[in-house]
Amino acid sequence: MAKKQKIQRPTAQTPKGFRDYFGAEVDQRTDMLRIIAGVYHRYGFEALETAAVETVDALGKFLPDVDRPNEGVFAWQEEDENDDGDWLALRYDLTAPLARVFAQHRNDLPLPYRRFAMGPVWRNEKPGPGRFRQFYQCDADTVGSSSVAADAEICAMLADTLEAVGIERGDYVVRINNRKVLNGVLEVMGLSDNDQRANVLRTIDKFDKVGESGVRELLGKGRLDASGAYINGVGLSGEQIEPVVAFLTSKMKDTTGTLKNLRAAIGESTIGAAGVDELETMANLLAAGGYDARRIVIDPSVVRGLGYYTGPVFEAELTFEIKDEKGRLRSFGSVAGGGRYDDLVKRFTGQEVSATGVSIGVDRLLAALHMKGRLTLDTSGPVVVTVMDRERMADYQEIVSELRQAGIRSEVYLGNPKSFGNQLKYADQRNSPIAIIQGGDELSSGTLQIKDLILGAKIAETATLEQWKDRPSQFEIPRADLVVRIKALLEEQAK
Amino acid sequence: MAKKQKIQRPTAQTPKGFRDYFGAEVDQRTDMLRIIAGVYHRYGFEALETAAVETVDALGKFLPDVDRPNEGVFAWQEEDENDDGDWLALRYDLTAPLARVFAQHRNDLPLPYRRFAMGPVWRNEKPGPGRFRQFYQCDADTVGSSSVAADAEICAMLADTLEAVGIERGDYVVRINNRKVLNGVLEVMGLSDNDQRANVLRTIDKFDKVGESGVRELLGKGRLDASGAYINGVGLSGEQIEPVVAFLTSKMKDTTGTLKNLRAAIGESTIGAAGVDELETMANLLAAGGYDARRIVIDPSVVRGLGYYTGPVFEAELTFEIKDEKGRLRSFGSVAGGGRYDDLVKRFTGQEVSATGVSIGVDRLLAALHMKGRLTLDTSGPVVVTVMDRERMADYQEIVSELRQAGIRSEVYLGNPKSFGNQLKYADQRNSPIAIIQGGDELSSGTLQIKDLILGAKIAETATLEQWKDRPSQFEIPRADLVVRIKALLEEQAK
Repeated sequence: MAKKQKIQRPTAQTPKGFRDYFGAEVDQRTDMLRIIAGVYHRYGFEALETAAVETVDALGKFLPDVDRPNEGVFAWQEEDENDDGDWLALRYDLTAPLARVFAQHRNDLPLPYRRFAMGPVWRNEKPGPGRFRQFYQCDADTVGSSSVAADAEICAMLADTLEAVGIERGDYVVRINNRKVLNGVLEVMGLSDNDQRANVLRTIDKFDKVGESGVRELLGKGRLDASGAYINGVGLSGEQIEPVVAFLTSKMKDTTGTLKNLRAAIGESTIGAAGVDELETMANLLAAGGYDARRIVIDPSVVRGLGYYTGPVFEAELTFEIKDEKGRLRSFGSVAGGGRYDDLVKRFTGQEVSATGVSIGVDRLLAALHMKGRLTLDTSGPVVVTVMDRERMADYQEIVSELRQAGIRSEVYLGNPKSFGNQLKYADQRNSPIAIIQGGDELSSGTLQIKDLILGAKIAETATLEQWKDRPSQFEIPRADLVVRIKALLEEQAK
Repeated sequence: MAKKQKIQRPTAQTPKGFRDYFGAEVDQRTDMLRIIAGVYHRYGFEALETAAVETVDALGKFLPDVDRPNEGVFAWQEEDENDDGDWLALRYDLTAPLARVFAQHRNDLPLPYRRFAMGPVWRNEKPGPGRFRQFYQCDADTVGSSSVAADAEICAMLADTLEAVGIERGDYVVRINNRKVLNGVLEVMGLSDNDQRANVLRTIDKFDKVGESGVRELLGKGRLDASGAYINGVGLSGEQIEPVVAFLTSKMKDTTGTLKNLRAAIGESTIGAAGVDELETMANLLAAGGYDARRIVIDPSVVRGLGYYTGPVFEAELTFEIKDEKGRLRSFGSVAGGGRYDDLVKRFTGQEVSATGVSIGVDRLLAALHMKGRLTLDTSGPVVVTVMDRERMADYQEIVSELRQAGIRSEVYLGNPKSFGNQLKYADQRNSPIAIIQGGDELSSGTLQIKDLILGAKIAETATLEQWKDRPSQFEIPRADLVVRIKALLEEQAK
């Protein structure tokens, strides 16, 4: 059993499905989370930060929207002398920990308990292009309020949040629906078979894509899709199909019209009527808060994870157009969603506690802002003080200290200073706006050379000799004017 | 094999060694991290955020300062058809991921690479009171610079950071030492046995506690400690002990004096002389940046994880006194530390890359600020608009919308409004400064009742009837004056 020993170096690689975030990517997300937390806080929500790790027992070991109830989490067993330590797992969302926290601390928490949480969650799923196994969620939930005022408030907060992070009014819409209305429609159709109900809901979810005629086909015999494949239909009769179509096409320009159509679509259904009443109440509350239908609108085609939700559901969609992979224009789509759910802590306590909440997809929202060119965060590098004489590091240190005390991002070059070219290459790689140079001549004359790297880059790209003469990319300043002149140059560059 | 089935409810409990953070605890930490990131950024460091999960292979599966090299991390194996998936683990610090990132991306990163990182790390250790298995670290490192200017800069940044988060000048000191000086002292002593060297270093680390005579005893035959137990000594001769004592007592009020003593202590040692030179260079650079010995001082008693560090080492100590568990006064102690290490990526690439860095203990720093009463973050709850008539939620919604648009944290009570007492109890639990009441009378007269809950609490505690008359804790305002009056009252309360 001799084993060959060999120096084997580990591979420097993130695990599959994980990634690193550098510089401005991190700053921009941090900044967005801070803004969102600010809005949530203003609405009276309190921060909650749970650990990444929960017991599998408490998590429930199941993911919403995943068919395999035992999969999807990263889990391991605690070491233990008897080999039966607790199973622990990384949280897969922020709602399961909220349920655990509320059940654990319910005697000490105010009721309603309004909390927000932001942070990474982990999914043990097959990674794919652009699909990662760790990503950020940003949630706000109101626990223990059965009033739809809580749902309306979350929709209003969602609209405020989108505007706060830089999505302009008109570029988004919060669409709301109600699970009870959908149930009412299913009741009118006379559908009691759960599989068939689920199939109808799935078809409703496709309305945006396939339109009214597509929905009719899919609910009936089936449909030949664009790729030529035949999709089997749900097999409903024309009579059964009518209420669904009436429901889906009930959206009007004004809320009053939509509500009227919905009432017609749910017919005699009691649960349906309750749903329409709730939608009406929400619409009234939102109107009182100044949120009109251009910002928050009743939209019967909103479905969202229906196994989970029991009342109002909502989602925020960005309506501006982007080009998809194939170059076709389409609207950016959903960046947040949520709704009311009733089983938050039932697993723990046996009691039904109603809650409503929203989850914002921070990464998608960042991507949207990038596409709109609305990320204004400063991504420029530091002012770099070059090292002409390594014996005079203290002088360079003094320069950089003065700049930092004036709030200017700056650093002394700390690599090997032998090659000045390498120092400028470094400044370029760091996206530095300015390099500062002080050799022996400048020292004796009490001056500094200032290199405007942004202008320098422009000149290198486009400018003619005349422009160069007009505004030199390198010039001399008195040492005493350091802070004033660098500040002025940075301001000029920012114009 | 019949199994009895029974409804077993999961326990709502964090796993052992993990905890939840609520409200202001979260806000205060977020705020501190933002301030620290601001200072790091100003110094030219770039943010880096790696995933919580790394391969065990890349992490190296070892913790500094832990004797059991295979323990201390939370690890699990990836599912895989052949049952030999990668082993993954939660990061135990932020340096191991930095090493992996630098090795993985070294061709794309600027050199020196200056990065900061902040976030939770996980240790699979036995939890104890106040010892958690998930906690925050906040690191800055300069990779690929062999210049001690990089070390000096990190010390300066550490001082700036402490002041930025609210530790006043005079309440902290950054103490620096150099591993090479210690090696020089060991050389002078003629110690080559590694165990004996380690024992001497451990003894040096106790100098602050046991003083000069204690160190003499511990290096020699042994010492009877305060509890009456006899601690065996290292067994050195008096001649061998002298250089250690000379070294430890070399600290003078001025840096020049300390350096002179250190040169005497390291005698003819070349490595020792190099260490003293480095300390001198750092002191000069820091003086040039305006950091005198009251803020950053050479202190030979600083040891810090010596197996790891190869050059300068430093730590930040808060010098103000607190009472320990037994009521005795002692200085608060260390909140940050770091130093230079040379083996950052050698495991991956075979190349030696020198790096220097610091890690701030965010939670300890927060605790210190709490003790000093310097956490000024607003921890007050929202203004609560009570619900007198549940049919008029839209009116209450309108009130709260106006307040929020004016930037005032506020909410409508969303619990069951039947009991007004419960609503006020809720406001109390939320630490609300103000409750707003509008019943039928107020509605018809176009007014609001304002309840000053902070004054109310004071009156309940202490005030006499005369004071009550002077400034009522409840009063009426015109509805139209809502924002102006609430703003004014909040300002008055903040005085």
